[in-house]
Amino acid sequence: MRRNETLLEMLLELQVLDRVPRMGYVLRGVPDAESITEHSWHVGFLVWALGGRIEGLDRLRALEIALVHDLAEVRTGDLPRVAKRYFAAGTQEAAEREVVDELLGPLGERAGELMAEYRAAETLEARLVKACDKLQLMIKVAAYERWGAGWLSEFWDNPENFPDLGIDVVRELFDELRAEHGH
Amino acid sequence: MRRNETLLEMLLELQVLDRVPRMGYVLRGVPDAESITEHSWHVGFLVWALGGRIEGLDRLRALEIALVHDLAEVRTGDLPRVAKRYFAAGTQEAAEREVVDELLGPLGERAGELMAEYRAAETLEARLVKACDKLQLMIKVAAYERWGAGWLSEFWDNPENFPDLGIDVVRELFDELRAEHGH
Amino acid sequence: MRRNETLLEMLLELQVLDRVPRMGYVLRGVPDAESITEHSWHVGFLVWALGGRIEGLDRLRALEIALVHDLAEVRTGDLPRVAKRYFAAGTQEAAEREVVDELLGPLGERAGELMAEYRAAETLEARLVKACDKLQLMIKVAAYERWGAGWLSEFWDNPENFPDLGIDVVRELFDELRAEHGH
Amino acid sequence: MRRNETLLEMLLELQVLDRVPRMGYVLRGVPDAESITEHSWHVGFLVWALGGRIEGLDRLRALEIALVHDLAEVRTGDLPRVAKRYFAAGTQEAAEREVVDELLGPLGERAGELMAEYRAAETLEARLVKACDKLQLMIKVAAYERWGAGWLSEFWDNPENFPDLGIDVVRELFDELRAEHGH
Amino acid sequence: MRRNETLLEMLLELQVLDRVPRMGYVLRGVPDAESITEHSWHVGFLVWALGGRIEGLDRLRALEIALVHDLAEVRTGDLPRVAKRYFAAGTQEAAEREVVDELLGPLGERAGELMAEYRAAETLEARLVKACDKLQLMIKVAAYERWGAGWLSEFWDNPENFPDLGIDVVRELFDELRAEHGH
Amino acid sequence: MRRNETLLEMLLELQVLDRVPRMGYVLRGVPDAESITEHSWHVGFLVWALGGRIEGLDRLRALEIALVHDLAEVRTGDLPRVAKRYFAAGTQEAAEREVVDELLGPLGERAGELMAEYRAAETLEARLVKACDKLQLMIKVAAYERWGAGWLSEFWDNPENFPDLGIDVVRELFDELRAEHGH
Repeated sequence: MRRNETLLEMLLELQVLDRVPRMGYVLRGVPDAESITEHSWHVGFLVWALGGRIEGLDRLRALEIALVHDLAEVRTGDLPRVAKRYFAAGTQEAAEREVVDELLGPLGERAGELMAEYRAAETLEARLVKACDKLQLMIKVAAYERWGAGWLSEFWDNPENFPDLGIDVVRELFDELRAEHGH
Repeated sequence: MRRNETLLEMLLELQVLDRVPRMGYVLRGVPDAESITEHSWHVGFLVWALGGRIEGLDRLRALEIALVHDLAEVRTGDLPRVAKRYFAAGTQEAAEREVVDELLGPLGERAGELMAEYRAAETLEARLVKACDKLQLMIKVAAYERWGAGWLSEFWDNPENFPDLGIDVVRELFDELRAEHGH
Repeated sequence: MRRNETLLEMLLELQVLDRVPRMGYVLRGVPDAESITEHSWHVGFLVWALGGRIEGLDRLRALEIALVHDLAEVRTGDLPRVAKRYFAAGTQEAAEREVVDELLGPLGERAGELMAEYRAAETLEARLVKACDKLQLMIKVAAYERWGAGWLSEFWDNPENFPDLGIDVVRELFDELRAEHGH
Repeated sequence: MRRNETLLEMLLELQVLDRVPRMGYVLRGVPDAESITEHSWHVGFLVWALGGRIEGLDRLRALEIALVHDLAEVRTGDLPRVAKRYFAAGTQEAAEREVVDELLGPLGERAGELMAEYRAAETLEARLVKACDKLQLMIKVAAYERWGAGWLSEFWDNPENFPDLGIDVVRELFDELRAEHGH
Repeated sequence: MRRNETLLEMLLELQVLDRVPRMGYVLRGVPDAESITEHSWHVGFLVWALGGRIEGLDRLRALEIALVHDLAEVRTGDLPRVAKRYFAAGTQEAAEREVVDELLGPLGERAGELMAEYRAAETLEARLVKACDKLQLMIKVAAYERWGAGWLSEFWDNPENFPDLGIDVVRELFDELRAEHGH
Repeated sequence: MRRNETLLEMLLELQVLDRVPRMGYVLRGVPDAESITEHSWHVGFLVWALGGRIEGLDRLRALEIALVHDLAEVRTGDLPRVAKRYFAAGTQEAAEREVVDELLGPLGERAGELMAEYRAAETLEARLVKACDKLQLMIKVAAYERWGAGWLSEFWDNPENFPDLGIDVVRELFDELRAEHGH
C-alpha cells in the first residue's frame, strides 16, 4: 500500500473499513459480525451519551479519540487479543505510527496524537474511550445473544472486558449489564 | 416497539442499526451495502477532517449532529429518496420527534434538538453535516465503482448529490471527486 | 429514477426486488432476512394452497393481487410498520399510484387497479391476500425461531399479526400456528 | 426427511426455499445469487405480464404451473444443467413424483399434476412457463452484468437459453434482450 | 461448460468450489453454510490427524482421496442425500467419470482413479475417507449448534451419519461426539 | 482461549477457520472473500497437482505442510502483510509456537515441526508450499477479476507475489498466469 497524497484518496481508502469484521465475534461463529466502522460509531455514541454526566471532561477531545482509535485497522485488519502476544514491547507503537503516517498523512499530526493519547490511557478522555471500547464490546455480545448467538460465554468470564477505569457511570452500566444479561 | 425506559435498553436496541442497509445502494445491486451505522461514522469523520479548515465552526456541536442525524432509522429503516414523496408537509418532523422520544428518551431532550437543527439546515454546523451527508454518499459511490459495481451512474447525474451549502472545503472536494471519479 | 418506457426495462428493474430485505426481520437481528420477492411468492403460494377451500373466490384475481401487492417496494424499500406513522391520510395512496405509474407503466392500468383493490381490502380476494400477508409473516417468524433466531417474541405478542378477516381456513391456520409455535 | 402430515408443517418447510441458491449463477461467481423462491416469483410475474397478450391462454392454470414448477428443489437443491446428465431416462420423473408426494402431500394431487404438465411441455400454459423460465434466466443475467458481474458470457452463447416455444411475445422479448444486452 | 485444456484454466475453474454451499446445512436454515472446499479441507485434516493411529494405512493415498473426493461438485453443485434417489444404478458413476474427464483432464487419469476408489469404499484408505466424510459432517453440526443453530436434530437421529467402517479411532470419536454433543 | 485438552475439542474449534476471511481481499473490496480453510485446500490441491512433476519431492510431507501452514490463524485471524511490520524479529515464531501448542496440543509435536519447516523455507517441500501459497493467491486474484472485482491491480504489481523459489513448474504457471490474466 502507498502513502495517501490527497485527502480524497485517503477518504476513499477509509471506505473499506466497513468490510473489516471484528475478529473476536467471527472466531466465535457470529454471522454478519460488526465492522470496525460500526464499532467505532458505537464507541463514539457511548462517549457522547455518557459524557454529559462526567465532570471535567473535554467532550470534543473524547469524541475525537473515539473517532480515530481503531483507524489503523483499515490497513492491518482487526487483531484479536491473542494475536497481540506477538508484539515485542514498543513495536506496536512504532508500527502504528508508521501506518497512521502513511494512511492519514493528509490530516497532519492530529490523528497520531489522539491515537497516542488513547494508547497511553492516562487522560480522563482516553480512559473514557478505553472503557467504552469494552462497554460497547459487551453490549454487542448481549445483543448477539439476544438475536440467537450461542458461543459467547467466554466474553462474560473475562474480567478484562469490564474495566471501569475509575469512571462511575461506566461502572454502573457494566453492573447493570452483568445483572441483566450476564451468564 | 416500546419506549426505552433505561439507557442500557436503548443502547442494546441501537446495536441493530448495523443491520440496516442504505437502500439507495441496495436498489442499485451493490452487494454488502453500507449500514446506517457505517454511513454515520463516515459523516462524522468527514465533519472532523474538514472542520479544522472552517472558520467559526463549533466542532463539538457539528460532531454531535453527525452522530445522531440518522438515528431514527433504527426504527424506520432507511427510506430512499423516492419514498419521501410519501410524506405530507410536516408529517415527517412530527413522526421523527415521536420516534426519537420513544427511542432516545433516556437521553432527554438533547438528541431531538440536534436532529431538529439538522433538519432546519440553517446553522453552519447543520449545513456542514448536510453537505457531508452527500459528500460521503458520493465518495462511497466512487469506492463501490472502484471495487466493481456497475449500475451507479445515476448518482453522478443527479445535481442534488453535490450540495456545497456555501462551504468552500466541501465544494473543493466535490469538484475533485467529479474530476477524478465522475462519469 | 425514471419512468420505464419498455416492458424489458421494467423487467430488468424488478430483478432488484430480490435485494430488498423485509425490514421487520432485519430490525430484529435475523441474518439473511427474506426479500420482498420471497415474501411475495410465499403469499401467492398460500393464496393458492388455501384458495381451493374458499367458496366463491376468484382464484385468478386473488393470485394477481398477491403477485403485485408489494411491488412498489422496488422503489421505496420495505417500510416497517412504525414508519407508516409518517404518512398523513391519503398520501400513501397518492404516492403509491405515482410509483406504480412510473415503474409499471408498460403494463397499463391493471397493476394499479389490483393494488388499489388490495389497499381497500373489501373484496374477498383482497381480504384473503391481506390475511395471507400476515399469515406468511408469522409462519416465517416460526421458521426463523426454529432455525435459531432469538428476538422475535414481539411478533407473537401483537394481535394485529393474526387477522383472519372473516376467512375460516385462515383462522384455523393461525390457531394451529399459535398452539404449536407461539410463545 | 419426513412426509409432511399437516398443511402447516409443509408451509414451514417451504420457507427454506429462500435459502436455496440458483447454482448456475453461483458457479459463475455471482455474489448473493437469486434463490429458487425469487426465480419462481419472477417467472410467475412474467407469465402474468405476458399472459394478457396470448390468445387462448388459461391464465390461472399458467400461474399455478409457474408457482409450483421448481418446488421439488426445497428437498433436492437446485441442480445445474450439467448435473442432469446423471439421470437415466424416466428416473427424474419417478423421483420428482416421490418428492412431491412427501413434501406436498397435504395439498393432494393438484401440485403433482401441474408439475407433470410442466415437464411434458405440451399445453400452451406449460410452454409459456417453460419459455418464461429461460426468459427470466436471461433477464437476470443481464441484470447481474449491469450490476458488475463479469463471467456470464457463456449464458449468452447457449442457444438453449432462448426458447420461444412458438409464443410470439416471448420471441420478441428474447430478440430485444439480445439486441440491447447480449454479447 | 467446456473441457479444460490447460492446467491453469482448470485451476481457475476450481476457485468457484468455494461458492458451492453444502446443501444439507442450507436446507436446515444455517446461515453462511460451509463450502465444498471447506468440507474437503476438514476431511483431509481429519484423515491426517487420525491417520497416524491406524496401522497399515497409506497416508499419502488417503490424503489424495480426501483432496479429490468431492471435486465433481464444482460442476454439479452439492446434491443433498435425497436427490440421490434420482440416480438409476450406474448412472452416477458414468456421469461422474465424464465430469472428471472434462474438468480435470489436464491431470490425466489419477483423479478419476482416486474417485473410483472412494466410491468403491473397499480399501482401508477409501474407508477412512468415507468415515471422515461423515465424522466431519457431525462435528460441523455440533459446531453450528454451539454457535446458535436450532434445526439440526435430524442429523443426530440418522444412524447413517455415524459409520465407523471398522476403524477404531473413528468409532471412538463418534462415541465421544454423541456423548458430549448429541441430542 | 483455553488449551484444547481433547482431539474432539480441537476439531470443533477448527471449524471456525471457515469464518476467517483472507484480509488482503477484504481490504480490496471483494465480497464473500475466501476463507483460510479454502485457501489451505487450494494450496494443498496445487501441491498435489504439481507434485508429480517435481523430482525428489516427498509428496506426503509437502501435503502435510500445506494442510497446517495457516492453522494458527484460527486463533489470530489473518494478518495482512502490512501488519507483519509489527513483529520484532523472532517474536512471531515464539508466539506461533505458543498458539500451536495450545490449539493443537492433542496432536503432539508433529504440527509444530511442519510449521517450523514451512517458516524456514529451506527444504524442497517447504519451498513448494511457500511458492504455491502465492500461486494460489494470484490464481484467486485472476478469478475475482473474472467474476467482476475491480481494485486488485496492486497484487499484480508486487513482485513478491510471484516467487518460484527455484521450482520450474511453478515458474511456468506464474508466467502463463501473467501472460493471460496479468495487467
